[in-house]
Amino acid sequence: MVRRGRQTSKTTWSDEDVRPKKQQMSKELTSREEDYSQWYNDLVIKGGLADYSAVRGCMVIKPYGFALWENMRDQLDKMFKETGHVNAYFPLLIPKSFLSKEAAHVEGFAKECAVVTHYRLMNDPNGKGIVVDPDAKLEEELIIRPTSETIIWNTYKDWIQSYRDLPLLINQWANVVRWEMRTRLFLRTAEFLWQEGHTAHATKEEAIEETERMLGVYADFVEEYMAVPVIKGLKTASERFAGAVETYCIEAMMQDGKALQAGTSHFLGQNFAKAFDVQFLTKENKQEYVWATSWGVSTRLIGALIMAHSDDQGLILPPKIAPFQVVIVPIYKGDESKPVIDAKAAEIISALKALGVRVKYDNSDNSRPGWKFAEYELKGVPVRLAMGLRDMENKVVEVARRDTKEKSSMPMDGLAGNIVKLLDDIQQNMYNKALAFRTEKTSKADTWDEFVKLLDEKGGFISAHWDGTAETEEMIKDKTKATIRCIPMNNEMEAGICILSGKPSTQRVLFARAY
Amino acid sequence: MVRRGRQTSKTTWSDEDVRPKKQQMSKELTSREEDYSQWYNDLVIKGGLADYSAVRGCMVIKPYGFALWENMRDQLDKMFKETGHVNAYFPLLIPKSFLSKEAAHVEGFAKECAVVTHYRLMNDPNGKGIVVDPDAKLEEELIIRPTSETIIWNTYKDWIQSYRDLPLLINQWANVVRWEMRTRLFLRTAEFLWQEGHTAHATKEEAIEETERMLGVYADFVEEYMAVPVIKGLKTASERFAGAVETYCIEAMMQDGKALQAGTSHFLGQNFAKAFDVQFLTKENKQEYVWATSWGVSTRLIGALIMAHSDDQGLILPPKIAPFQVVIVPIYKGDESKPVIDAKAAEIISALKALGVRVKYDNSDNSRPGWKFAEYELKGVPVRLAMGLRDMENKVVEVARRDTKEKSSMPMDGLAGNIVKLLDDIQQNMYNKALAFRTEKTSKADTWDEFVKLLDEKGGFISAHWDGTAETEEMIKDKTKATIRCIPMNNEMEAGICILSGKPSTQRVLFARAY
Repeated sequence: MVRRGRQTSKTTWSDEDVRPKKQQMSKELTSREEDYSQWYNDLVIKGGLADYSAVRGCMVIKPYGFALWENMRDQLDKMFKETGHVNAYFPLLIPKSFLSKEAAHVEGFAKECAVVTHYRLMNDPNGKGIVVDPDAKLEEELIIRPTSETIIWNTYKDWIQSYRDLPLLINQWANVVRWEMRTRLFLRTAEFLWQEGHTAHATKEEAIEETERMLGVYADFVEEYMAVPVIKGLKTASERFAGAVETYCIEAMMQDGKALQAGTSHFLGQNFAKAFDVQFLTKENKQEYVWATSWGVSTRLIGALIMAHSDDQGLILPPKIAPFQVVIVPIYKGDESKPVIDAKAAEIISALKALGVRVKYDNSDNSRPGWKFAEYELKGVPVRLAMGLRDMENKVVEVARRDTKEKSSMPMDGLAGNIVKLLDDIQQNMYNKALAFRTEKTSKADTWDEFVKLLDEKGGFISAHWDGTAETEEMIKDKTKATIRCIPMNNEMEAGICILSGKPSTQRVLFARAY
Repeated sequence: MVRRGRQTSKTTWSDEDVRPKKQQMSKELTSREEDYSQWYNDLVIKGGLADYSAVRGCMVIKPYGFALWENMRDQLDKMFKETGHVNAYFPLLIPKSFLSKEAAHVEGFAKECAVVTHYRLMNDPNGKGIVVDPDAKLEEELIIRPTSETIIWNTYKDWIQSYRDLPLLINQWANVVRWEMRTRLFLRTAEFLWQEGHTAHATKEEAIEETERMLGVYADFVEEYMAVPVIKGLKTASERFAGAVETYCIEAMMQDGKALQAGTSHFLGQNFAKAFDVQFLTKENKQEYVWATSWGVSTRLIGALIMAHSDDQGLILPPKIAPFQVVIVPIYKGDESKPVIDAKAAEIISALKALGVRVKYDNSDNSRPGWKFAEYELKGVPVRLAMGLRDMENKVVEVARRDTKEKSSMPMDGLAGNIVKLLDDIQQNMYNKALAFRTEKTSKADTWDEFVKLLDEKGGFISAHWDGTAETEEMIKDKTKATIRCIPMNNEMEAGICILSGKPSTQRVLFARAY
C-alpha cells in the first residue's frame, strides 16, 4: 500500500531520527553494522509499521503497525481483566492547577506539557487566513495529559468513601502527550498510545502487592508474547517516576547492547491521596489516606520488539503477536495453474484458520513471487509457504521460517498441525536466542577501568558495585552515559566497593547505556 | 463502587445538564414524566455509566459504561474488518493551517477548536505556583482534532501515487475535542470517543458505494445490536458535514419524541484531495484527484441507547451489548445454605459461560437481595436469576426479565439453553417495542397548522412537504425548533405543496425536534 519514503517537507523530527536518506527510496535496507539507527528507522518505515507526520514528534501508526499493537493490546487487556481490573476513560485535558498539587509530579512533567490556552479560531481581521480568537482565552489553561494520576485521583476523591469502595482496580487505554525534544519513531514520540493502570487500596501492603503483581504481568507478557527476556528490578531514587515512592521496572537488552525500559509499575504510597485529599473510612471507623499504584506500558514496546529480534533483511515478529503468522504465496505457471493452486491453498487456509492461525494469501497480480518473498521477509511474517504445481504433484509445500531463514519441504498431509508446531518452535527459538544474547551481553565489572572498557567494547548490562548515593550515580552517568537500569529483584547481597567512589557497597546493581 | 452524587464543586457543566439535584443523594430516580432531562442524567450517573469531571464539558466514562462501549466498539470493529477496513492511528494534534485548506471544513470547525499554543510550564517567578512558559510558544498553533480529515489527507498525499494504491480503507478509533457550549453526558461532550473511517477511491461511483455501504453497516449495528430502529436518509445541504458533497445519516426516535442522529457517512467528493493535492495515476496514465469518504459513530450512541429503551426504574440494555447479560443473586437462609446454593450457582454459571453468556454472580455480603434486585434493575441487566433453598428443592430458578419485568419460574433442567432463548427474545422484543413506538410517533402533516399541532402535542417524526430551499428550512427551524432530519433513502416521489411557503414540492421529508 505504501511504498514511498519520507518526504523532507513534511516533518521537523530531531536530527537523530532524520539520518541521510540515501536508501529510503528503494527497498534496500541499511544494515545494523553500517548504521544501527538508520537500520531501525528503515525497518519501521519500510516495514510498514509507522510513518512521520506533519506534526513535530508525532507519528502515524500505519495499518500493519497498528495490527501489531492491537494484538499486543488485546493480550495485555486480557491479562489485566484476569487479574481483576476494569477499563474506564478519563478526560484528555487536565486543569493546570491539578499538576501542581503533587510537588514531585509537577517537577517531573511541567517541562514537557502541551498547553491548551484557547477554545476558538476566527478569520484574521486582516484577511490573512485563520487565527486564534483572543476573546476565547481559557480562564485556566488545560494541559494535555502526560499521564493521568492527577485527574484520576481528583475523581477518586468522589468515588472512595469507605473501605467497601476499595480496592479500586481501574485501567485506561489512552493517548498521552509529552513534549520531548529528541524523538524517535515508537521509542520516544510526543504523542504515544499506552495503558495506565491506577489502583487504590486500603493498606500499604496491598498496594505494594499490586505494584509487584502488575510488574509480573508485564514481564510475563513481554517474555511470553514478545519473546523478549526482561530483568525485573527497582529503579534508584533518581530514576523514579515523578510522585512515586518506589518504581519497579522491566529492562530489556537490544541488539546494539543498549538497554530499554519496557514497562514500569509504581508504588505511589499516599502521595496522590494526600495531594487530592482522598481519605476513606476504615473498618475501625477511622479516616485514613488511600494507598495508590500506577503502571503503564506503551507503543514504545514496539521499538523494543524491533530492536530485540530483527535482522538486516527486515523485521522478525514473534508468532504470538504477528499480524499474520503465515503468508502463502502461490507460484503460478500459466493461467491454467491458478484454479488448481488456489483451490489447494483454500484448503490449507481453512485448515490453518480452524486451528486459529492468522493467515494471509497473497495471490495478487501486481508483483512476482520473488518480490513478495522479500516483502514478507521485510515485514517479518514468521512463516512463508510457497506452492507451485510441482509441489502439488509431490504433495508438499515449501516452508520458510523467518527467524532462522531455513527452508524445508513439508508434506501437505497434516500440514496445518505441523505449522502450528512450527510457530510454537519459532516463538520459543526467538526467546532463546534473545536470552542467549542477553546472557552473553551481561558482564561483571569490579574496577572503574574494567567498567569503562566493558561499556565501550562490549556494551550490554554491567553488574557492578555502587555506593548507593545519587551523586555517584550522576557522576557515572556524566562520565559514561551509563545509567543504573535497576536493582534487580531478589538481588544477591554481596559486600564490595563502589566502582567509582571506592566506598563500601552491599550489592551490585545493573548498569547500561539505554534508550 | 460509586454511590455518591455529583459534587457541586467539581464541574462547570451547562445549565441544562445541571438540574436541581434533589434526589441525587438517594437511589431514587426522577421519572420521565416529572423531568425527562433529569431522568436521563440520573440513569447515566446512578446507573454507573459516566460521571462529571473537573474539566468543562468532559466526562469520565465509568467502568460499567466503558464495558458497554467496549462491546459496541468490538462489534463495530468486527463489522468494519469484515467489510475490508483496517485500523491505523493518526496524530491528535493538527497544524492550524491544515484546517484552512478546505473552506467549508474550517467554517464548520473553527469555532469549537481547543488550541495548543505552548509546550512547557514553569514556576511562576513571583512564586505563585505554575504558569505557562512564555518562551515555549509554538511557531504555529496546533488544534486538538475535532475530526481528522485534514491530517489524514495530508498523509494520504504520500501514500497514494497510483490506482494500485487504491482503495485505501482505513478506520481510526480515537478521542476528539469539539468545544461545545452546551454539553450533555454522552450526547454532547467536549471530548468524546469515536471511530472515523477515511477512505480513498479511484472513482466517484466507488466512493458513493462505500459511503452507502458504511451507512448500511451503521444501520445494521444500531438495529441488530442496540435494538434501535433507524431511518436511513440524506441530510439537506444546510445540515451537511463541513466539507462533504453529500451526508448520509441514520436517525433514531427517543421516548420523548425527539430524534437523534446516530451516525453519519459522508461522500466527500474530491474536496479534500484538492485541498491537499492528492492525485493518482489512473490505469490510463492520467493524473486525477482521489475520491473520498468519511464516516463516524461515537459514544453519543450510548445516549441514544438509554433514551430509546430505559424506564423509570433504570436502564434497559439490549442483551447483545450488555456488559452482563445475566446476574445471579443467591437468597441465602442461614450460613449452611451458602455452600449448597453457591455450588448450584457455579454449575449454572459454567453452563451459561459454555454458551457464551456473560454472567455475574453477586454473592457479596454487603447488601441484601432486595437492594441487589433494585441495583441490577437500575443497571439494566437483561436477566436476573434468584436462587433460594426452596427453589433448589423444587429444581427451579426464579427468572426476571428486565424489559417486561415479568417473573417466572424456570426448571433447572435445560436452564442455560432456555436463558439463551430468553436473551434472544428480549433483544427482539426491545427492537419491536422501539419500532412500534417510532411507528406510532411518525405522522404526516399537510398544512402548517397541522404540522405545528403535531410537533407540540405528539412530537416524533413528521413527514411533510418542503419546497427544497434553505430559506424555508431555516424559517421552519426558527419558528418551531424542528429540523429536517433527513430525506429518506428510496423516498417516494409525491407532488405536493410546502407546508410553510406553499410552493410546489416533489417529495416529503422527515422533520423532528432533535438532540
